[in-house]
Amino acid sequence: MTEFRDTLETFPNSFPERDYEIEIICPEFTSVCPKTGQPDFGELVFTYTPAALCVELKSLKLYLQKFRNEGIFYENITNRILDDLVAVLQPRRMRLVSRWTPRGGIRTNVTAEYTAAADN
Amino acid sequence: MTEFRDTLETFPNSFPERDYEIEIICPEFTSVCPKTGQPDFGELVFTYTPAALCVELKSLKLYLQKFRNEGIFYENITNRILDDLVAVLQPRRMRLVSRWTPRGGIRTNVTAEYTAAADN
Amino acid sequence: MTEFRDTLETFPNSFPERDYEIEIICPEFTSVCPKTGQPDFGELVFTYTPAALCVELKSLKLYLQKFRNEGIFYENITNRILDDLVAVLQPRRMRLVSRWTPRGGIRTNVTAEYTAAADN
Amino acid sequence: MTEFRDTLETFPNSFPERDYEIEIICPEFTSVCPKTGQPDFGELVFTYTPAALCVELKSLKLYLQKFRNEGIFYENITNRILDDLVAVLQPRRMRLVSRWTPRGGIRTNVTAEYTAAADN
Amino acid sequence: MTEFRDTLETFPNSFPERDYEIEIICPEFTSVCPKTGQPDFGELVFTYTPAALCVELKSLKLYLQKFRNEGIFYENITNRILDDLVAVLQPRRMRLVSRWTPRGGIRTNVTAEYTAAADN
Amino acid sequence: MTEFRDTLETFPNSFPERDYEIEIICPEFTSVCPKTGQPDFGELVFTYTPAALCVELKSLKLYLQKFRNEGIFYENITNRILDDLVAVLQPRRMRLVSRWTPRGGIRTNVTAEYTAAADN
Amino acid sequence: MTEFRDTLETFPNSFPERDYEIEIICPEFTSVCPKTGQPDFGELVFTYTPAALCVELKSLKLYLQKFRNEGIFYENITNRILDDLVAVLQPRRMRLVSRWTPRGGIRTNVTAEYTAAADN
Amino acid sequence: MTEFRDTLETFPNSFPERDYEIEIICPEFTSVCPKTGQPDFGELVFTYTPAALCVELKSLKLYLQKFRNEGIFYENITNRILDDLVAVLQPRRMRLVSRWTPRGGIRTNVTAEYTAAADN
Amino acid sequence: MTEFRDTLETFPNSFPERDYEIEIICPEFTSVCPKTGQPDFGELVFTYTPAALCVELKSLKLYLQKFRNEGIFYENITNRILDDLVAVLQPRRMRLVSRWTPRGGIRTNVTAEYTAAADN
Amino acid sequence: MTEFRDTLETFPNSFPERDYEIEIICPEFTSVCPKTGQPDFGELVFTYTPAALCVELKSLKLYLQKFRNEGIFYENITNRILDDLVAVLQPRRMRLVSRWTPRGGIRTNVTAEYTAAADN
Repeated sequence: MTEFRDTLETFPNSFPERDYEIEIICPEFTSVCPKTGQPDFGELVFTYTPAALCVELKSLKLYLQKFRNEGIFYENITNRILDDLVAVLQPRRMRLVSRWTPRGGIRTNVTAEYTAAADN
Repeated sequence: MTEFRDTLETFPNSFPERDYEIEIICPEFTSVCPKTGQPDFGELVFTYTPAALCVELKSLKLYLQKFRNEGIFYENITNRILDDLVAVLQPRRMRLVSRWTPRGGIRTNVTAEYTAAADN
Repeated sequence: MTEFRDTLETFPNSFPERDYEIEIICPEFTSVCPKTGQPDFGELVFTYTPAALCVELKSLKLYLQKFRNEGIFYENITNRILDDLVAVLQPRRMRLVSRWTPRGGIRTNVTAEYTAAADN
Repeated sequence: MTEFRDTLETFPNSFPERDYEIEIICPEFTSVCPKTGQPDFGELVFTYTPAALCVELKSLKLYLQKFRNEGIFYENITNRILDDLVAVLQPRRMRLVSRWTPRGGIRTNVTAEYTAAADN
Repeated sequence: MTEFRDTLETFPNSFPERDYEIEIICPEFTSVCPKTGQPDFGELVFTYTPAALCVELKSLKLYLQKFRNEGIFYENITNRILDDLVAVLQPRRMRLVSRWTPRGGIRTNVTAEYTAAADN
Repeated sequence: MTEFRDTLETFPNSFPERDYEIEIICPEFTSVCPKTGQPDFGELVFTYTPAALCVELKSLKLYLQKFRNEGIFYENITNRILDDLVAVLQPRRMRLVSRWTPRGGIRTNVTAEYTAAADN
Repeated sequence: MTEFRDTLETFPNSFPERDYEIEIICPEFTSVCPKTGQPDFGELVFTYTPAALCVELKSLKLYLQKFRNEGIFYENITNRILDDLVAVLQPRRMRLVSRWTPRGGIRTNVTAEYTAAADN
Repeated sequence: MTEFRDTLETFPNSFPERDYEIEIICPEFTSVCPKTGQPDFGELVFTYTPAALCVELKSLKLYLQKFRNEGIFYENITNRILDDLVAVLQPRRMRLVSRWTPRGGIRTNVTAEYTAAADN
Repeated sequence: MTEFRDTLETFPNSFPERDYEIEIICPEFTSVCPKTGQPDFGELVFTYTPAALCVELKSLKLYLQKFRNEGIFYENITNRILDDLVAVLQPRRMRLVSRWTPRGGIRTNVTAEYTAAADN
Repeated sequence: MTEFRDTLETFPNSFPERDYEIEIICPEFTSVCPKTGQPDFGELVFTYTPAALCVELKSLKLYLQKFRNEGIFYENITNRILDDLVAVLQPRRMRLVSRWTPRGGIRTNVTAEYTAAADN
């Protein structure tokens, strides 16, 4: 499913000399549980420091919509979307938090982070 | 009561090279006070970083339901459930917070943590 | 299951000449789904105007705990508990609202009311 | 215990020709359970339309403090305090709502009202 | 699209002699905008008084999921789902409120109601 | 103290044929307790239907500031300000609610209303 | 400024036989104070029952944006926008509430309503 | 007043090898102001890491009730109760936060902490 | 205006050997803008660790009331009040946060801190 | 567009020897999207430690209003306004957070910071 990431577009960061942070909150994410075929609903929160590129918001929206009918687990969604954005943006740092609506009286949140090697 | 932990099932962590965090919130926990025989009600919040295994959520739900008619103190529930999950998952880190509804005008919360030796 | 109602105790209303209202909120109700055997969790809110009798609160707590391992639907719980309290208290008016935690992304609330014939 | 009401002081209503409403909220009420000797904690909310007299707030505070070590049930507190204020103020209308902190997982609220005969 | 309503299942109302109310809250509804092809997200709240039949909750969930990839306007979704439920349940009264997430800085809610003729 | 009302300015209501409502919320009111000389703090909420005139907001602000060092009781402030605004605006209807910060663990709210004779 | 209303577009109401309600919330309204030239910020909430026509949401957004650099008072904005929508939609009923951010420590809300003559 | 601490009972900590935290929230504390004789109302929050002993909750409740008619300042209550609990429990760490309801428009919170010498 | 600080009274700290924290919240502060003569409204929050002395709360209230008709900027109020309290109390540490109600759509908060030299 | 910064006025910091913090919250910011020509709405929060100069609040308001009809992206607004304020105030430290209303179901926040060289 790597081809999803081709949907992502970027624009140049106009202030690359400054280490600043962009937070993007997507409360309308939905995908499908691979076990039961039932839809899952969650909120994704991206927090990143751009290097040369910023993500274009409309393309991010279209990229996330590609998961609408995809069967995939919470943990894998979170890690794979982070991988896709890191591959396209090559940011200095990026964190992705996904928060899911309750199933069977239990709620789950997943947090994954990336830090560019040179940043350590 | 070690046999409760046999209910817990796992699935392989697909991103073991990344140190990420899974938070599981269970607001529907109930057990029984060993002194009075009255039911207790609480919320359990697990936060862990998986090593090779993740806990399967439905099996966690069934595991927690086994305490429904069990007489056990707040402090012991919290520590014993943490021990069970650590035994089964062998996570890098795990924290368990339990928050209990008021009794006699007093509320209690208990927090216990585990860190794998190699993680220090 | 009519024998549950024998647990309910009453005390005399000291101000029967006044038409006043008592609200009792029980956020710790739990029973079992008759289809799946899974536990259900809900909040019950009673609102009533006593005639000759008030319900004793500790006995109400013990009465509600009898449903802990009983398999019964939301709609039937609400109507049956209302029937039991009306039978024992003979109040001027009584309303029972039950609010249930989400299952499959759906939440349900049920509201039932009783009014004594002479009150119309 | 009728002598409690002697603590209540009044001042003349300067706008008796207007039918207006005064709401007084007392979140620091405490008394003692007559069964168990344990303290009870609640909030009292008075809402009244004065006729010739308004209640002086400091005297109301001192009056309510007299219940601090008094053993008395929720329903009786609410009705008796309403009776005392009605006797002293002779208001056009008065409502008293008492809301109590949880005991055994159950919360109780009591509401009583008075309306002067001429007001009907 | 009338065939969607065949998904809805019912069970008999055990307390038909009482005029009581069932509220069902579905915060995970999603469909598609017929103009733009973009997904819409909303919350549906049903409030009804059953006559002979109650809606079975799992079948309601599956029925609502059928709209996932359907292109349809807010106003039409609300009225059509109300029509389907009324046709299947023949309730005494039913209200449906749909609340939608913002688009272009604007949020929309739609409310439609049905009352059985004999109920007037 | 009737001269305070000379501060109030008005402008003509451009839509006198429509019966509409203007709500003005003033959370920064302060005056002085005539008994103790201590400052009182409250929020005033005006709700009125204009006839020929609307109140100009800046003049209202200056009018309310005149009470800053004035010694006056809650009940009298509320009724007197309502009287001043009714005298100047001659509205169809006006309600004034004042809500005061706690003193001695007790909070007070006062509500007064005016309705033009022809409006009944 | 009547020409603003030409921006509004409509679509046919598919359920004209049902008396249902559409609520539209616009929290991003801005105009200019005619006295000071300073920008004003408010939220508009429309609630209406359509007859033959519904308002198209994108055209409503563009219509409201025309006020961005217009000098106009709160009371007049509210009444004029209501007049424009009533002229274009001819609804059965419509209410418009505008809520404005504070100026000089004072907040204002305005509510205006329209009811079609035949509806009375 | 050292004899108050004799009311406190303990039970052995079953998990002394783990450094875990117990939080106890007591929102129903009341004592008396030594200057004015007026009652004070506050919330106490204990957070501690047990060594060999845990505090028994019912005995804590009874211990706190002993302050009901005691004249003592906020700062001294907080420090003295901390001293009593530290003397009885000998915990690894303990923090006590007291939060008091407003008097004369002013609210006060006091925080005191204890750390066992070996813990540094 | 240094003479304001003479209003402040102190009492001895009974637990000087313990490094504990006192927080005092004053939501009813008001002064006057030196530019416009208009009143300003704010909340002051003091957080300090006492050395030999604690501030007496009633004297603090009277001290703050002295600013009621004083013309002074936000930044200067915050720093000057901190200076006065530090001069009188000689605390180990003190922080003062002032939060002001909005003016012209803009809100301001100011935070200033003091640490005794020996504390570094 | 560097000329915008000429609108900003300053006043001398009266407490330059103290390292204190000023937070300014501007929830009424609006500009225009350079792609679509649609208005954007956001909240700006400035947090800074002054050196010799403070920003005058009314001039800040007028400065921010200059962006009302300017086409500019979120990331560039945030960085450019920070640059302007740093150029005029030469503060010890300054942070600017901008939070934007949702577009297409996605919200964005941007955070940029400046620290004077000598401050490191």
